[in-house]
Amino acid sequence: MSGSLVLALDAMGGDNAPDMVVAGANVARVRYPNLQFRLFGNSEKLEKLLRRFPKLAQVATVVASETVIEASEKPSQALRRGRQSSMRLAIDDVSEGKARGVVSAGNTGALMAMSKIVLRTLPGIHRPAIATMFPTTRGESVMLDLGANIECDAENLVQFAIMGAAFARSVQGVRRPTVGLLNVGSEESKGHEEIKRAAQTLREADLPLEFHGFVEGNDIADGTVDVVVTDGFTGNVALKTAEGTASMYTGFLRATFRRSIFSKLGYWMAKPALLALKRRFDPRRYNGGMFLGINGIAVKSHGGTDALGYANAIGFAVDMMTQGFNEKVIRDLESLDQGAKDAAEAAAQ
Amino acid sequence: MSGSLVLALDAMGGDNAPDMVVAGANVARVRYPNLQFRLFGNSEKLEKLLRRFPKLAQVATVVASETVIEASEKPSQALRRGRQSSMRLAIDDVSEGKARGVVSAGNTGALMAMSKIVLRTLPGIHRPAIATMFPTTRGESVMLDLGANIECDAENLVQFAIMGAAFARSVQGVRRPTVGLLNVGSEESKGHEEIKRAAQTLREADLPLEFHGFVEGNDIADGTVDVVVTDGFTGNVALKTAEGTASMYTGFLRATFRRSIFSKLGYWMAKPALLALKRRFDPRRYNGGMFLGINGIAVKSHGGTDALGYANAIGFAVDMMTQGFNEKVIRDLESLDQGAKDAAEAAAQ
Repeated sequence: MSGSLVLALDAMGGDNAPDMVVAGANVARVRYPNLQFRLFGNSEKLEKLLRRFPKLAQVATVVASETVIEASEKPSQALRRGRQSSMRLAIDDVSEGKARGVVSAGNTGALMAMSKIVLRTLPGIHRPAIATMFPTTRGESVMLDLGANIECDAENLVQFAIMGAAFARSVQGVRRPTVGLLNVGSEESKGHEEIKRAAQTLREADLPLEFHGFVEGNDIADGTVDVVVTDGFTGNVALKTAEGTASMYTGFLRATFRRSIFSKLGYWMAKPALLALKRRFDPRRYNGGMFLGINGIAVKSHGGTDALGYANAIGFAVDMMTQGFNEKVIRDLESLDQGAKDAAEAAAQ
Repeated sequence: MSGSLVLALDAMGGDNAPDMVVAGANVARVRYPNLQFRLFGNSEKLEKLLRRFPKLAQVATVVASETVIEASEKPSQALRRGRQSSMRLAIDDVSEGKARGVVSAGNTGALMAMSKIVLRTLPGIHRPAIATMFPTTRGESVMLDLGANIECDAENLVQFAIMGAAFARSVQGVRRPTVGLLNVGSEESKGHEEIKRAAQTLREADLPLEFHGFVEGNDIADGTVDVVVTDGFTGNVALKTAEGTASMYTGFLRATFRRSIFSKLGYWMAKPALLALKRRFDPRRYNGGMFLGINGIAVKSHGGTDALGYANAIGFAVDMMTQGFNEKVIRDLESLDQGAKDAAEAAAQ
């Protein structure tokens, strides 16, 4: 196989690491036969686990690391003290060209800080963003930023739009994704200065995306656009609000079916349909926080996920590698710059 | 009855006005026998409607107004051109002391702009905020601001906390409400400067509330705190995101029960329990955007609600009037100022 499909896994990150990571890699191995893994962590434990998965062992290399970044560590601490950690060595592996991407279910802030420092950002990208896919009424959409940047200016938001659209094209196969800026109303006069300036740029730019304009909170679940763009503060709150609401609803539904003997019977009658509904919203399907704008591929898995969820996070990394996500972003940024230059020249004449 | 329980209704605001407004007032009349209404709008239509509700007619006065603020009008337009509108005259009524509060299902931006200009803010309040109640896993909570202030500083957030807690004490009967600042994490180091400064003030102040610290998006539906405080941009997005998610879930559930003959049967078996669930989330129960910080009582009803929802919005106005909401806010602001002075003096000695 080509050396380009090697993935570095932080095998010690996550609630049930390294077992869950190795089991997840084994699921991904079946889905992506060209993939090779470099597993960073406690070599004794990892070698022992690999004995359970002989086929995975054929495409996996164990790289010993001494320490683990704790979930409670601040990014600054992790940067200083985590140089020999499984997470850091996995990221170093990408910068050294031994792997094309890294997946970790460990500390999000540490993973972002280390990825930025070690791999740096793509040429022209000011700030990387965290993106995720989520289920909507119409299918699936992607939203960013989810917390990497608490405050964002117009240029950041425009770059997020470009990266989100490139993700939708690469991973979801949407030819020309629709993009919306999250705001408090859909009229052009709504919102703060930065979001209005970002809208202005996106309206005028010639990019491989369809700028829809402003969208509101309810448009997230409605699936009004393929890509929802917002600052990291709002995006983080919106995503967690949606998760909390879904979980409240599920909890009440469960209690509802337990209310009486009739509702219990009703549950059993409707069970296949209800299980289909549950699968539709299965968080493992959407398990992957993609670090967009990093000069390399970095995906954060949810810490509490299982093998199936981890395999899905690996899948996002594979799609971004094989579909040339970073190359698309670089090309679109150049086209945006060229457009701005052309407009300035035309205005000067 | 005492003259203090007179409410001015913008009878022309809302999708089904004035019918829905008059029918809603009639529902509220039964609940609050001491209430009197002043109905602003087309007197011919209103007199005709009142003939259907003779008992309401006994406690209602029709005040003729010439124009109506349209849903699409900008606040600035409404201020200039709407001086003879039903909405404006109803607000004027409060400033002239003929009514204690105003309820409208019309244009939110216009209602806020006019209320601020005509009634002004409570002494010490820099900016009014819009608050609403919503269902949670544990019961009901209140959130503000929902869109009146796109950008907020630390002092605004502290004042929102005081107003939200005073609302929970007045309307929900919570003796000492818990208050959380909406943020991207619960640790003290999270978030931007203004939110950290607001947290610092709330941690040190001696107020009739329990400051919980930072809360995250999922804490909204979890009901972690009685009062969720945030800027108007984030609050607006969060509320609409929660509404959109709930509506997506309901839509999928409906489709799920239609999937097969078995799931349809299951629905019929579980129907009483499912209807109870529906009632639990009935948006009419939470119909009321309270304008907190206005020197007077102003409540915005959802434009598309029915008589029952409108009666609930009236109920919020009644509770705020009878429970001395504004007096509580003034007292708490004074106590905050006194605390700051005492601390400054102690520091100077």
